[in-house]
Amino acid sequence: MGGLHQHIWPWRYWLLLGSYGLFLLLGTAVFVGVEAPQEAGLREALRGARAGFVRQHQSCLSEPGLERLLERVLDADSYGISALGNVSDDENWDFSSALFFAASVLTTTGYGHTVPLSDGGKVFCIFYTLLGLPATLLLATCLLQRLMGLLSHRPVQYLHTHWGISSGHAALGHAAAMGLGVLGLFILLPALCFWALENGWTFLESVYFCFISLSTIGLGDYVPGRGSPSSLRHLYKIIGGAVLQGAEWGQ
Amino acid sequence: MGGLHQHIWPWRYWLLLGSYGLFLLLGTAVFVGVEAPQEAGLREALRGARAGFVRQHQSCLSEPGLERLLERVLDADSYGISALGNVSDDENWDFSSALFFAASVLTTTGYGHTVPLSDGGKVFCIFYTLLGLPATLLLATCLLQRLMGLLSHRPVQYLHTHWGISSGHAALGHAAAMGLGVLGLFILLPALCFWALENGWTFLESVYFCFISLSTIGLGDYVPGRGSPSSLRHLYKIIGGAVLQGAEWGQ
Repeated sequence: MGGLHQHIWPWRYWLLLGSYGLFLLLGTAVFVGVEAPQEAGLREALRGARAGFVRQHQSCLSEPGLERLLERVLDADSYGISALGNVSDDENWDFSSALFFAASVLTTTGYGHTVPLSDGGKVFCIFYTLLGLPATLLLATCLLQRLMGLLSHRPVQYLHTHWGISSGHAALGHAAAMGLGVLGLFILLPALCFWALENGWTFLESVYFCFISLSTIGLGDYVPGRGSPSSLRHLYKIIGGAVLQGAEWGQ
Repeated sequence: MGGLHQHIWPWRYWLLLGSYGLFLLLGTAVFVGVEAPQEAGLREALRGARAGFVRQHQSCLSEPGLERLLERVLDADSYGISALGNVSDDENWDFSSALFFAASVLTTTGYGHTVPLSDGGKVFCIFYTLLGLPATLLLATCLLQRLMGLLSHRPVQYLHTHWGISSGHAALGHAAAMGLGVLGLFILLPALCFWALENGWTFLESVYFCFISLSTIGLGDYVPGRGSPSSLRHLYKIIGGAVLQGAEWGQ
């Protein structure tokens, strides 16, 4: 056990940490380079639209009055409540939406388009998650162990004994097939569905949404069912919740 | 291996799945019960404010014109760009914000208050995460293994050999101390800091934010540094990114 007398953090840990820090900085630099100009353009356009609106209605409209209204509108929007006339029926806390919220919290995805408003809801959310995260992990582990036998050990053995392929090659081919299967089943297929069903989503946006969901990042810039009619949306959210759980267990 | 000839999914798996489904439904019911009335109230107030604004300015303002402006304002807000005059300097893609974004994506927290706007940014985000998530997990595992020796095995052994406490009691006491330590270091201490530094956050909201972050849910309803002066915010975001990474590795 001579290693214990060595320095507490050997140099290879610092190397690892340093590389990771560099990786973070590199990502940051690319994001700044790609996104900052886009953002500046959008900000300019928005400022212009606001100024134009004030100019157009200057006979009766006061700048501070508009500011107060916009403050309220944006504050409500941060809780998922829209001030627009055409989407006023979009409830966040009906049954299917609440189920979708519960599923997205338990998989740690947390899109954030629906958030608890009240103190009670926040406290419940904390304790529900404290209980639910270990339960989700436990269930995922149980199902995964079962699935691993069915989907991994058995097919490799089958290829080996019935087709006479060497264990190494069988395992390699099987891993590649599984990778493509997961990609197809959890990314491409749902992306195609969203692309077809969501108004105004491009294929890239659909793939991006599936990826951000499957990795449980859950940015919430794209959330399915926001542009569709109300009845479809409910069905969607429940299926979406199930898919989220399935994706989590599939990892 | 008689178990393999059994039914593919024994009844205990169905029991497990059923209990989990019930747990989801229970959570859903509580969220609906607690949040739906709150939401209805907020929605009513917002609708009243909008109608009042239109009434007050009816001499020059048209309802469709206001709707178009609000559409633009809310669309920009979903990309993290505010139409309010008093927060116009709040850039999402300067260096510190982009670093905070990269850290929150790599820990799968994804608050969603900052999101890539361009197609290029989305594509980069996918590939960056594909590379970065395994790297983060690898680094976390390496550091954790190292830390486990220092923080777990050694103190228990020390208690056992120097204080003469039985191994079982030493392990139990140590686990309790570690649990309290994590709670204090990663939830209570940061919550106290946010409570003191963030304008308008209650203590409950601070605890809620730390918990939602630490569990990598990342709802994004509370994000530090939004109400503080610009220079403070930059420092914050960088420290916040580091804390997020630290919290991820601590799990």
